[in-house]
Amino acid sequence: MAEALWGSSALLAGLRLGHFTDLEALTGCTVVLAEEGWVGAVDVRGAAPGTRETDLLAPENTVEKVQAVLLTGGSALGLAAAEGVVRYLREKGKGFPTPGGVVPIVPAAVLYDLGRGKVHRPPGVEAGYQAALAARERVEEGSVGAGTGAVAGGVKGGVGLAGYLLEEGHRVMALVAVNSLGRPFDPLTGRLYGEEFLAEGERALLPDRSRYWGSPEDYRYPFLLGQNTTLAVVATDAPLSKAQTRRLAIMAQDGIARAIRPAHTPLDGDLVFALALGEGKGVDPYILLRLGAYAADAVTRAILRAVLLSGGAPGIPAYRDLLG
Amino acid sequence: MAEALWGSSALLAGLRLGHFTDLEALTGCTVVLAEEGWVGAVDVRGAAPGTRETDLLAPENTVEKVQAVLLTGGSALGLAAAEGVVRYLREKGKGFPTPGGVVPIVPAAVLYDLGRGKVHRPPGVEAGYQAALAARERVEEGSVGAGTGAVAGGVKGGVGLAGYLLEEGHRVMALVAVNSLGRPFDPLTGRLYGEEFLAEGERALLPDRSRYWGSPEDYRYPFLLGQNTTLAVVATDAPLSKAQTRRLAIMAQDGIARAIRPAHTPLDGDLVFALALGEGKGVDPYILLRLGAYAADAVTRAILRAVLLSGGAPGIPAYRDLLG
Repeated sequence: MAEALWGSSALLAGLRLGHFTDLEALTGCTVVLAEEGWVGAVDVRGAAPGTRETDLLAPENTVEKVQAVLLTGGSALGLAAAEGVVRYLREKGKGFPTPGGVVPIVPAAVLYDLGRGKVHRPPGVEAGYQAALAARERVEEGSVGAGTGAVAGGVKGGVGLAGYLLEEGHRVMALVAVNSLGRPFDPLTGRLYGEEFLAEGERALLPDRSRYWGSPEDYRYPFLLGQNTTLAVVATDAPLSKAQTRRLAIMAQDGIARAIRPAHTPLDGDLVFALALGEGKGVDPYILLRLGAYAADAVTRAILRAVLLSGGAPGIPAYRDLLG
Repeated sequence: MAEALWGSSALLAGLRLGHFTDLEALTGCTVVLAEEGWVGAVDVRGAAPGTRETDLLAPENTVEKVQAVLLTGGSALGLAAAEGVVRYLREKGKGFPTPGGVVPIVPAAVLYDLGRGKVHRPPGVEAGYQAALAARERVEEGSVGAGTGAVAGGVKGGVGLAGYLLEEGHRVMALVAVNSLGRPFDPLTGRLYGEEFLAEGERALLPDRSRYWGSPEDYRYPFLLGQNTTLAVVATDAPLSKAQTRRLAIMAQDGIARAIRPAHTPLDGDLVFALALGEGKGVDPYILLRLGAYAADAVTRAILRAVLLSGGAPGIPAYRDLLG
């Protein structure tokens, strides 16, 4: 049986995680540093994405490795933060080698949190640089980084990280920033949709929901307004090829489907980045199948963790606040 | 609250459903006839698809309407059955008008059931023609048509159909043929993954599972072998544009994710066709969001119905046989 991991223990060796959090503007960004270069891929499934350096990730394109992935608030304005990560990597000499020096490859994706804070200050170059400087092998979850201003179906969203150690020795992990249009919980019962995926040791996070007051008007899919987008980065230390890394991203999307309803809508930018350690030589498809299955489960758990570990913000209740 | 529909009552006006069932070869095919032409789209997410006429369904390509969609057993050999549907439509003068006469547009997708019957006889031209001739406004579910030889995670798969009437008056439906590598039920408890999606009136289909004997070795994702692929056709009477019809297909994939674990793997050909009535003028994105959300839920319910309504076949237990 695969062993469930979460928080810092789920972070793969060779990766570091850094948050920049702006509580006044209620926004921020989160960087996954993979300085030595990990094979990269992406799968974009929402209809309103905001992205940078995703085209080169197509399996048929040349560059295979990325040095970082950035998730950021600020809608398309927040893409500027990627330049700060590029600057940090360039200073360290990490990137794709070219005759004119290294070019750091930093795919990025945004979520919408404009107007939620007291001031308008979307993450910029300095925010990205600070996030990279702050990167550690320790993981902070909840309302931090790209999740600082996040809202998930009416409750406070945030950042979560979960993973698995598989029997065959490979690890897989998922980092998410949850700012979903869809709800992570059943409005009638308060139950989190993915509760059954939580590991035994994570169930202590679940609040008592005996005092949840589901309104009879809370039918399943009202005309949902609001903003939008679940972003994920899944990673494995198995030596996937670039095309297999994309399959990992594709399978991981099912983890969003199982935790958020609805998902992949016309009004969100749901996407999954995937990273794999090694030189891209590839693995047996049965190994890939298992890695993808557990990557999806890790995404579901990371979404639950983000919702469970995020406190409220002005005007945005935490999930546990709904439960009395 | 949207009203749940199933079986014949869920089939949209203007569509007809026809099965060809070969119990000796344990295979068959299922056609959805949309003779007057419905806007068509597809979303392919499995890594091992077998398809026909899917490229023209891309939003940027010219032909907007299809006259039928075919789901068939026989792996890639079964694609021949589409020619029978083309012949049927051509005889009736239905298709894309050209100077040389009408050209029926019949997208098709296959599932793998070779070697499950007593003889090798994948669906051919005559099978497709017979399925079209048999098409009615009445729906037969279970081990019929494309689901005749289907296996879903070790139990008998089949065909199911479910839908919704939304408050705003639009309908959405999902037809599925379930032959999934992943399991539709939790091996430890016997619970169907999507049980909570069933409508009140459908819950009578659920067998008593008090006698289910989950093996402690039944851990979540063993090295799954076996074959493969969940095929779906979702449809709505809302006048979606061709690109919106594709979004409907994309959102509907989440219904597979919620009913089958794992899904969209390296070893299946999971895909969703989508059909929309009208001239493709498009709807408000909030309407599309709701249609997509309910299309996904309909897919989940249709998968459950397929598994619950299918009896066993030689060497393939029905789901209810597991429950004592």
